[in-house]
Amino acid sequence: MLLGIGLMPHGNPVLEPEDEETKKLAEVLEGIGRTFRDVDSYVLVSPHNARMSDHFGVVMAEHLVSWLGFEGKELPGEWETDRELAERIYKAEKETGMPAVDLNFASLRGEYSRWPLSWGELIPLQFLKKKPLVLITPTRGVSRETLVKFGEILGDVIESTDKRIALIVSADHGHAHDENGPYGLRKESETYDRLIMELINENRLEELLKVPEELVKNALVDSYWQMLIMLGAMRKAEFELKESAYACPTYFGMAGALWIRKV
Amino acid sequence: MLLGIGLMPHGNPVLEPEDEETKKLAEVLEGIGRTFRDVDSYVLVSPHNARMSDHFGVVMAEHLVSWLGFEGKELPGEWETDRELAERIYKAEKETGMPAVDLNFASLRGEYSRWPLSWGELIPLQFLKKKPLVLITPTRGVSRETLVKFGEILGDVIESTDKRIALIVSADHGHAHDENGPYGLRKESETYDRLIMELINENRLEELLKVPEELVKNALVDSYWQMLIMLGAMRKAEFELKESAYACPTYFGMAGALWIRKV
Repeated sequence: MLLGIGLMPHGNPVLEPEDEETKKLAEVLEGIGRTFRDVDSYVLVSPHNARMSDHFGVVMAEHLVSWLGFEGKELPGEWETDRELAERIYKAEKETGMPAVDLNFASLRGEYSRWPLSWGELIPLQFLKKKPLVLITPTRGVSRETLVKFGEILGDVIESTDKRIALIVSADHGHAHDENGPYGLRKESETYDRLIMELINENRLEELLKVPEELVKNALVDSYWQMLIMLGAMRKAEFELKESAYACPTYFGMAGALWIRKV
Repeated sequence: MLLGIGLMPHGNPVLEPEDEETKKLAEVLEGIGRTFRDVDSYVLVSPHNARMSDHFGVVMAEHLVSWLGFEGKELPGEWETDRELAERIYKAEKETGMPAVDLNFASLRGEYSRWPLSWGELIPLQFLKKKPLVLITPTRGVSRETLVKFGEILGDVIESTDKRIALIVSADHGHAHDENGPYGLRKESETYDRLIMELINENRLEELLKVPEELVKNALVDSYWQMLIMLGAMRKAEFELKESAYACPTYFGMAGALWIRKV
């Protein structure tokens, strides 16, 4: 059963927020952690783990090990995969014809069955109580409909289990908010980020499907594909937005949002 | 152009060989390194990197970083991907309908485009001069014909490039050679290993396709699938066996073999 969804950024600034907006964002992230402290497992969708052109990945490796921080920010730690749930998700996606692969490393079981984590997972995990998780990697080379469908099947599997699950979507938004940043300044980053926050705050997530392809591309985001998976999963029950926040202390936009299942 | 092939084990004992057979095997591995010291790049097929049920992987990540040793044997180091060759291989395999994914991690380019290495790659690499490489991961959930076909396409791509390439196949054989080992003692491990060495030494590699499925399964090997890829690649030119050796100092069988292109 899907108890709720946390949309979480993965930028270093949320770890040590300096300005008021980022502090507010970090509070939302802490709220996500508190809200989900009693779940059984997380399903975590991250854009900075395995990246495949046209296949989703479901990590089966038993041990998820910190490996790669951003700009020297190392966040050591080890998490465990909810292997039973991972297998159910992979099986269901495959049976429905989704282009998905199961990802293991070195050994299929045991101490050598490990998978590396990057800042894309590690930063959201800093705000979440340590639990088993299923790590899923999105892909950009499939249609929007396929992304949503993948999320719907994911939602079906989560709904069909007795476990209490939170879906965590790791995402940052426009990356061209600063003329001195690595991607310069682009109007589209601002446009995209404002639109995303409107869709979140006005309960219009279905309109994600209408966001122009050119805008997604030119805004230089790494949120859109995960959010379509999220949209699919959220179609399987009713959810209410509890909190949201946005901050852009450097060159990329970060959003936090917490949705709770309606009772 | 495929200059030659090295079949190399990935067991710790070859690093510090104690018995005569393992010393002889290590000498063959050193000979592989010497023979290929002037190639431009390696294509390395390893069974202990990413493991997917029914998809081959072609690693695109730019930096290949030591991550996981076996039984505490750490072998630090970093290698670079021959990205141009990796892209050609991936593209050709996909265009021919092979079930293959391109594997990247964290970022698509630059310093964060990294991929972890295990003992499956690191031990063969100890014997090879540092060069760019393309890391390929086999899969067990496809037909023998698909494995050979993947190798044939790989061979076509290698033959079509001006680069001088060596194909390195990381493989250990039966894992049930010791009644006190983790997999116990099974007659099939001995049978399989003896058969493999016959096929190698008697130039009968095409007969790999006739090895009974039950024997492969019961011998507990991690060599068969990579060797079928190797067989496919070797069909694209003529090769001559220069050296081979076998040793089984612990519970698993290790083989080394060097084939050179006939001039």
